[in-house]
Amino acid sequence: MYNFKFHVPTKIYFGKGQISHLTELKECGSKVLLVYGGGSIKRSGLYDTAMGYMKEAGLTVYELSGVEPNPKIATVRRGAEMCKAEGIDMVLAIGGGSTIDCAKVVAAAAKHDGDAWDLVLDSRKITAALPIFSVLTISATGSEMDDTAVISDLDKNEKWACAAPCMKPTMSVLDPEYTYTVSRKQTAAGTADMMSHTFENYFSTVEGADVQKRLAEGLLKVMIKYGPIALNDPTNYDARANLMWAASHAINGLVGEGVSMSWPIHMIEHELSAFYDITHGEGLAILTPVWMEHILNEKTAPYFATYGRNVWDIRDEDDMEASRKAIECTKKFFFETMGLPANLRAVGITEDIHFEEMADKTLGAGKRAFYPLMKEDIIAILKKSL
Amino acid sequence: MYNFKFHVPTKIYFGKGQISHLTELKECGSKVLLVYGGGSIKRSGLYDTAMGYMKEAGLTVYELSGVEPNPKIATVRRGAEMCKAEGIDMVLAIGGGSTIDCAKVVAAAAKHDGDAWDLVLDSRKITAALPIFSVLTISATGSEMDDTAVISDLDKNEKWACAAPCMKPTMSVLDPEYTYTVSRKQTAAGTADMMSHTFENYFSTVEGADVQKRLAEGLLKVMIKYGPIALNDPTNYDARANLMWAASHAINGLVGEGVSMSWPIHMIEHELSAFYDITHGEGLAILTPVWMEHILNEKTAPYFATYGRNVWDIRDEDDMEASRKAIECTKKFFFETMGLPANLRAVGITEDIHFEEMADKTLGAGKRAFYPLMKEDIIAILKKSL
Repeated sequence: MYNFKFHVPTKIYFGKGQISHLTELKECGSKVLLVYGGGSIKRSGLYDTAMGYMKEAGLTVYELSGVEPNPKIATVRRGAEMCKAEGIDMVLAIGGGSTIDCAKVVAAAAKHDGDAWDLVLDSRKITAALPIFSVLTISATGSEMDDTAVISDLDKNEKWACAAPCMKPTMSVLDPEYTYTVSRKQTAAGTADMMSHTFENYFSTVEGADVQKRLAEGLLKVMIKYGPIALNDPTNYDARANLMWAASHAINGLVGEGVSMSWPIHMIEHELSAFYDITHGEGLAILTPVWMEHILNEKTAPYFATYGRNVWDIRDEDDMEASRKAIECTKKFFFETMGLPANLRAVGITEDIHFEEMADKTLGAGKRAFYPLMKEDIIAILKKSL
Repeated sequence: MYNFKFHVPTKIYFGKGQISHLTELKECGSKVLLVYGGGSIKRSGLYDTAMGYMKEAGLTVYELSGVEPNPKIATVRRGAEMCKAEGIDMVLAIGGGSTIDCAKVVAAAAKHDGDAWDLVLDSRKITAALPIFSVLTISATGSEMDDTAVISDLDKNEKWACAAPCMKPTMSVLDPEYTYTVSRKQTAAGTADMMSHTFENYFSTVEGADVQKRLAEGLLKVMIKYGPIALNDPTNYDARANLMWAASHAINGLVGEGVSMSWPIHMIEHELSAFYDITHGEGLAILTPVWMEHILNEKTAPYFATYGRNVWDIRDEDDMEASRKAIECTKKFFFETMGLPANLRAVGITEDIHFEEMADKTLGAGKRAFYPLMKEDIIAILKKSL
């Protein structure tokens, strides 16, 4: 196990009706920037509920709406300007990971003398942020409990993650009932996303990080059990609750601190999204089994075999055989059980014209990588994913 | 899954050499009360190391030493008086759970106008505390990352747990190397203690708390793997590291929030310790399998069977058979593999004269109990443990 710092200060209110705790926002001031997406929170009534509690707390609410599924830097800039112009005290995101990511960088940019894109390109420049709050409506990214945000400049085909301790939310409300209306497509993509986060932390060659690995296996088992239930029975409380809580833990440091983190699938997928604006979780699902097959060899087989045995209950003693079965289970789960698109053609990417450029931008997965990917590996994975 | 609040604000510095972060204490003021036990930290050099960093940070250090294995209220009172008299800003515990527990109540009592025992008897009276820091030297209680303290008044055969959010440590240093010198006896007792914490959270009838249950199973597997390694190879870094990190997660809310917590074994054991001053972890190990056998029936078998299947890899399809094997595995692990005392006689308790009184004080395990224990159950469990 490597040395690490673990710090998850976000206060979580989990369960039905916990949104009433929004009245606690008044402890951070009087002016709130409410950040949300396309208006579904108005149709569902969540907007009115939240406004009610904020009114009760005597807060003045400003609004930044229309946050995109891959949130754009232009939206962040708009939010940061409002914060500066109005002297806003805190930011509240109501939505999924994209909305929370946008709110995080708005909160940081509000404290930054310069352009918000500086912060996206260089996390070291993120030194302060307004207090960040969230009410989660999609289980997927884990942004409600971590320090990271992903922002795009699609005009330039750029999509980058930035992270800083000050971007950890102060408080997040996790009410599984708010995810009842998440579509089949987004439920499946969200499940793939949280599983990918777990995989990115789990597939690590660091020795002796058993706590992190056994906990990761536990989270994967929960996602594999409840993903299909949520898909077919969208108002099943236990399914929505377990997916929500598992997704938060997949990326809050619990299974990631103390192991090596190189996140190769996310790096490749971010390029796919940057060039083609596809749904993040779908891109991850397509790439993951291809990546597994591409890097399977005598050295990696023991890791995939352990995954197969502890998560899929595969009993083969031979590591290579257990690995192949584990990859097969993963494919079957994503593409049959969860109905996710099985290749890039299914999400509208039919040509390999940008693959070389994407591979160049993806390089640098880090020396601690589980299996360091060279440019030709990345191109091969992308081509096999077509 | 029940509604819950999850808040683990303690900053953890985990790994070799992380004690250098003690210089961060200066952010909380200039006067520190250093709390420790019998002087082993002086022999090991840890005392000098810590003093070096505190001197570097310009801190003035006051000392409360001689904290007992079952920390006494008299010691707490002594510490609280020093805090008040000297205007101390923060408390630093260096030691195991007893030392940290003592430091927590000292920190709370320093802010309380009245006797410290009031706080032990009624947690609602704990409304503020000085900032609490810890450097952990025994993996067991998880006090380094939770809100709870257990304090005794052995003159009155009283031992009670109290808890409050303000008693969560601000920062804890977890360096597994500091546990290399923990004795066989204490390593075994510590492993039993952390396993018992996990069991107390895990055996719950709440439906749909899969995240908590799968994570608990992961922690148990880690403890079962590494307990014996630490016992037989005390300077094995991975063993000490995994036990340390698993113990913290066993009780910080990760596997406890959202499920029912009644903690019957701890309630009974606290009475044993209060009357006989035995080692807490040994008492827990003795009581746990007896409790399991006592409450095993058609209703509880599915839970013990799941434990057996997911933790001990028991393959029986019949729940009752799988449960019996799981209990057998638990016994074998505690009393053979870990060499823990197998009954109360082995820790010097040969008579049942106090059992009735102890049972009276243990009652009230709460309506959410996995299996509510009546007075006659508690007496039967104690008698079977003799």
